Amino acid sequence: MIKATVYVTIKQNVLDPQGSAVQGALHSMGFSEVGKVRIGKYMELELDTNDRSEAETRVKAMCEKLLANTVIEDYRFELSL
Amino acid sequence: MIKATVYVTIKQNVLDPQGSAVQGALHSMGFSEVGKVRIGKYMELELDTNDRSEAETRVKAMCEKLLANTVIEDYRFELSL
Repeated sequence: MIKATVYVTIKQNVLDPQGSAVQGALHSMGFSEVGKVRIGKYMELELDTNDRSEAETRVKAMCEKLLANTVIEDYRFELSL
Repeated sequence: MIKATVYVTIKQNVLDPQGSAVQGALHSMGFSEVGKVRIGKYMELELDTNDRSEAETRVKAMCEKLLANTVIEDYRFELSL
């Protein structure tokens, strides 16, 4: 079994309203040192395979087709046995 | 400036309906090798400080008070200059 950890983040030049909201909330709670906040997704997938290179191809396809919106999001992933 | 990377994940024994939905979607798209899927949040915060130990205390407080719901979620974070 291979475990894939996928990180999906909003591209640098795309507005992140969720991040801005969290930044505002932190400021109003007294955490005035907080600058830019960016929020993304973190996913853990268990894959029923032991072929690392196949897993890499398949996870890339999953990211492109479902897990990330590649118009506005970047993704990266790590595989571990 | 210190950059904090925060990972918020749902606790092991808590149901993750978003993860189940993603698993179902991946199966219906032909990714039948996908087992358990767990979805969490990934946050990048810029902190206007250079005091690492102070930043650690402050980010811990932010997680406890706002970023994570510690009843059902775990969190961990990394700091980098």
